[in-house]
Amino acid sequence: MSRAARGEQVLDSAAELFAADGFAATSVQKVADRARLTKAGLYYHIRDKEDLLYRICDHSISTILAGARKAMARSDDPQARIVALIRNHAEFFRAHPDNLTVLNRDINALSPQRRSAVHKLERAYLDLWRGAISDGQKAGTVRRGVDPTVAAFTVLASLNTLHIWYDPKGRVGYRTMVRQITAILCQGLCTTSNDKRSEPNG
Amino acid sequence: MSRAARGEQVLDSAAELFAADGFAATSVQKVADRARLTKAGLYYHIRDKEDLLYRICDHSISTILAGARKAMARSDDPQARIVALIRNHAEFFRAHPDNLTVLNRDINALSPQRRSAVHKLERAYLDLWRGAISDGQKAGTVRRGVDPTVAAFTVLASLNTLHIWYDPKGRVGYRTMVRQITAILCQGLCTTSNDKRSEPNG
Repeated sequence: MSRAARGEQVLDSAAELFAADGFAATSVQKVADRARLTKAGLYYHIRDKEDLLYRICDHSISTILAGARKAMARSDDPQARIVALIRNHAEFFRAHPDNLTVLNRDINALSPQRRSAVHKLERAYLDLWRGAISDGQKAGTVRRGVDPTVAAFTVLASLNTLHIWYDPKGRVGYRTMVRQITAILCQGLCTTSNDKRSEPNG
Repeated sequence: MSRAARGEQVLDSAAELFAADGFAATSVQKVADRARLTKAGLYYHIRDKEDLLYRICDHSISTILAGARKAMARSDDPQARIVALIRNHAEFFRAHPDNLTVLNRDINALSPQRRSAVHKLERAYLDLWRGAISDGQKAGTVRRGVDPTVAAFTVLASLNTLHIWYDPKGRVGYRTMVRQITAILCQGLCTTSNDKRSEPNG
């Protein structure tokens, strides 16, 4: 196994334990055991326990952001981009479900400096989403009259809470669920050339 | 002030402190001080600290559920019902923003019996949503091919995370934001008689 693959395995083991027991209650020894490393072997990959938490957060958002940038580069069509962005986001957390729990819950255990580094990445990702929505509004294929930030959070909120309610043993498969959510959110965001649907009155 | 109004004020004070400092770190004395009661006066309203937490959860969901039932009774039109359900949900948490933080984060501090009572109310509320969506699907005004549970959670996820990102001092007012989210989610869920929009390919 390459060092990079071993490193990712260490992060997944740590995320699994942090998600189940909480960051505070998980020892470095437990992470080493789960990753089948000695404690010394684990310290080859990380500096300390907070470093593990930081790397989980950094790796998650960096990977999603890289995937999102690829999705944006692959198409000029705003609707196709939004579909691809949703899938990229959902796909990462399907593969790494514990990372989302850790990101949502344990980020405050990071030092202010590292928390701020993670928030900077999150902000870059949010900016990418806002740009995709705003491009679509300029092109007339994403509904106008909706603030791009409000639209981005509406979508991201749905995707970021899947792990709370989605039951992998339930009757709806993950990909089917993501396809249905994508359908709802894309139809919600996008216009058609002959759209006669009116805005709900406020 | 009536006993009921005083009781609600006690719950709001407690929710504010629990949301800011966490359930574990908040003493009964602090809640009494915030509610401008003596500790003995506070114990007139509650049995113990866990009772406060339970009442916050129970009061929140019971109030939302009662509002949702009224919204369902006011109209037979599935689209109008969904708009009214969204507004009812958003309106409660606009008035009681801390309750949502407490519900999301501190519910595990309840005894299993009380947690189960809260989950029973949440389940009744979810069933009401699923029914509203499924009625609309039967009437042909809510898109078919979407599982009512997936649709309900897509909507509720957006509404239940407002407090994390919405900045009341920002450029978008609360009612405007809710109107925009309602527009996205309703358009996402509903069909029109001449809908030529196709499903995203999966």
